[in-house]
Amino acid sequence: MAAINDVPYKIYLEESEMPKAWYNLRADMKNKPAPLLNPGTHQPMTAEELSGVFCADLVAQELDNTTPYFEIPEEIRSFYKMYRPSPLVRAYFLEKALGTPARIYYKFEGNNTSGSHKLNSAVAQAYYAKKQGLKGVTTETGAGQWGTALSMACSFFDLDCKVYMVKVSYEQKPFRREVMKVYGADVTPSPSMTTEIGRKILAEHPGTTGSLGCAISEAVEVAVSNPGYRYVLGSVLNQVLLHQSVIGLETKAALDKYGIKADIIIGCAGGGSNLGGLIAPFMGEKLRGEADYRIIAVEPASCPSFTRGVFAYDFCDTGMICPLAKMYTLGCDFIPSANHAGGLRYHGMSPVLSQLYDDGLMEATSVEQTKVFEAAEQFARVEGILPAPESSHAIRVAIDEALKCKETGEEKTIVFGLTGTGYFDMVAYEKFHNGEMTDYIPTDEELAKYRAMLPQV
Amino acid sequence: MAAINDVPYKIYLEESEMPKAWYNLRADMKNKPAPLLNPGTHQPMTAEELSGVFCADLVAQELDNTTPYFEIPEEIRSFYKMYRPSPLVRAYFLEKALGTPARIYYKFEGNNTSGSHKLNSAVAQAYYAKKQGLKGVTTETGAGQWGTALSMACSFFDLDCKVYMVKVSYEQKPFRREVMKVYGADVTPSPSMTTEIGRKILAEHPGTTGSLGCAISEAVEVAVSNPGYRYVLGSVLNQVLLHQSVIGLETKAALDKYGIKADIIIGCAGGGSNLGGLIAPFMGEKLRGEADYRIIAVEPASCPSFTRGVFAYDFCDTGMICPLAKMYTLGCDFIPSANHAGGLRYHGMSPVLSQLYDDGLMEATSVEQTKVFEAAEQFARVEGILPAPESSHAIRVAIDEALKCKETGEEKTIVFGLTGTGYFDMVAYEKFHNGEMTDYIPTDEELAKYRAMLPQV
Repeated sequence: MAAINDVPYKIYLEESEMPKAWYNLRADMKNKPAPLLNPGTHQPMTAEELSGVFCADLVAQELDNTTPYFEIPEEIRSFYKMYRPSPLVRAYFLEKALGTPARIYYKFEGNNTSGSHKLNSAVAQAYYAKKQGLKGVTTETGAGQWGTALSMACSFFDLDCKVYMVKVSYEQKPFRREVMKVYGADVTPSPSMTTEIGRKILAEHPGTTGSLGCAISEAVEVAVSNPGYRYVLGSVLNQVLLHQSVIGLETKAALDKYGIKADIIIGCAGGGSNLGGLIAPFMGEKLRGEADYRIIAVEPASCPSFTRGVFAYDFCDTGMICPLAKMYTLGCDFIPSANHAGGLRYHGMSPVLSQLYDDGLMEATSVEQTKVFEAAEQFARVEGILPAPESSHAIRVAIDEALKCKETGEEKTIVFGLTGTGYFDMVAYEKFHNGEMTDYIPTDEELAKYRAMLPQV
Repeated sequence: MAAINDVPYKIYLEESEMPKAWYNLRADMKNKPAPLLNPGTHQPMTAEELSGVFCADLVAQELDNTTPYFEIPEEIRSFYKMYRPSPLVRAYFLEKALGTPARIYYKFEGNNTSGSHKLNSAVAQAYYAKKQGLKGVTTETGAGQWGTALSMACSFFDLDCKVYMVKVSYEQKPFRREVMKVYGADVTPSPSMTTEIGRKILAEHPGTTGSLGCAISEAVEVAVSNPGYRYVLGSVLNQVLLHQSVIGLETKAALDKYGIKADIIIGCAGGGSNLGGLIAPFMGEKLRGEADYRIIAVEPASCPSFTRGVFAYDFCDTGMICPLAKMYTLGCDFIPSANHAGGLRYHGMSPVLSQLYDDGLMEATSVEQTKVFEAAEQFARVEGILPAPESSHAIRVAIDEALKCKETGEEKTIVFGLTGTGYFDMVAYEKFHNGEMTDYIPTDEELAKYRAMLPQV
């Protein structure tokens, strides 16, 4: 345990070394992500059409496939300094516990009150909303990390914040709701009676525990029907991956500072916000032929959009009022089993990541829930941090890859994204401890049913 | 909001700049803290007597009033590097919100899974227990921060960990219990039927919500009656203040690095672990006549040991099986009203701090609960961090002092300890939001009743 290490336990960049611009991965992609389509006409959405839903500056970011860097506004950089740079941690104790020759690093995004990386995009979206003179924003949240992050950002910029929270999470995580209230947000369990689409879904599925797709529909409906409001989203969108590139840029700067070359980069994947941000500069090098990396997306076996979905145009929401996106999807009506804990519940996947995956530039794998919590606990006990269930998907595969290195004797360098902490996930941890946690893997028939319902584009 | 600041938002020391030794404030005290007394004979406790309860190395630290520095063992320094150095944060946004010319800094100890500074001493105590070849340790926990910290440390060193948790916290914070379980601890609500003293207290006070003093008695009983076990404590003791000096040493190193001279140092005070650690090197300078500081202890109005207690020998526990300590105390039978949220519920105060306070070397003030939560929310909204109720006592007074500077125009430098996060305190925050939180101030008669029960020494 002697600390005779060249690399410190935690690499913190200086504030002066923090990224001053976000990196737009799309600029380096040969095959650009397919455009969003108008759900009525099936024609590419124009900036004007999108501006009814999103802030103007964010629309510009959403549609821009060519500009490689976007300067991070000074106000956002100041906010970032409240909780960034986040540490890149060398997992010395985990390596020792595993007895692996692999070198494991994780980029830890949990050291802020939202408990995750979500704040990186929340502050950007709130800033642009304020800049545009809006009254407020609406959004959905699943596990509650995004909702908390947005509440914090809106509180800071004095914006109204309406959050539709997936009902199962609202019930399993009452304290998340209270955190959002501290930051002044208005939180409604979804589906709710406050929207047309919510009332329709409740009428059709009275016992539903909700889904992200459904909560999105409600939040969008409220945004477009209230003057001075826009909708904001914590994942999937190109703009979100752009903002989250700060994760990857800091990671790469920290590795470069110590002359470390990553071999494998691992991230959990729900809608793709963390994964897309973490891998951005590495994938950029790969696209430009400057370096090669194994990049692995890890998703839950209960919601396997990459590994068992199809690459097709689909609705982003259950209510089918959002634009169509070309992505790996399970169908917008797919709702993961309620036994699935935490986030990563979204039926689709970022169009950018979907295109990269389809082009063979990255791998994907799925893991079962109980194996994920085993990894979470193993990690917590040696590295000290109690990880979020979402993040623990990446831990699971990082451990598995490190154990492969133990067999082969290879000294690979593994980098994974530890997106957040599990402090609000103790109901799930309790189930795991009590042996009440189960694994649910959708059947082929179940997936085929939703696939058959995909829109014809 | 432009970041044209000489001082970064967060000052992180390099790992190489982290303290290599703890500072023993007692070495510089002219009036040493009074010795612990044997509760039977009223004679000073010998090392041998203490060794039945505490680990040998910790007994040596407890009794040593002259050695100024204790080297931090390599294994503890390695563990510290998992979550330290903690940042010293410049509260630029809070200053702006208050419109104060004061410069406010806070040492943030919440970036670890225990959620507080408690881990600093937990890892030290677990390390010495392991070194001595013990099977395990017992302890009590109030708000749950100490229990979580000890669980983490014991898991790391593969020690058994038995935690007696004050019943009111056990019930209000079910998730704390689950976090401790992730780290393998055995958690029992106190008072319990598992000990003689617990059974006795339950027989006398069937509806009691418990107290730290009572939980201590239970934990000590289990330690002394099980071979291979010792008792460990998260506050009050000299050894704990010694370990916690890492907070103050890092704070001072960070200030010195930027040439900053503090004027006022503020810490919340329950048993004194954070306050004693934070102020240690500053008080040292004051004792040696090298510098002067205003040092302010902040305690809850519902448990005001400094401001309304007496400086006398008292039992550390309700069961009166622990040594007697000379300290500011409300009487070992005093239990704060159940409406008091969070920690800082202890009837006494560190003997070191008690002596310093009695010698006029520091100030103390008490604050009411609703005012504390007002400060907590104000802080959260601009600085991003959701603070623990305990820490928010210090925030309250830091804000009040900064507002005084606004009136006088003085550019004072205020440093306070932000001991932890409030993620497990959402029940209290919810009460505050719903207007259900009340302030409770014990009457003079109530305090006199417990004072009359102090032991005659």
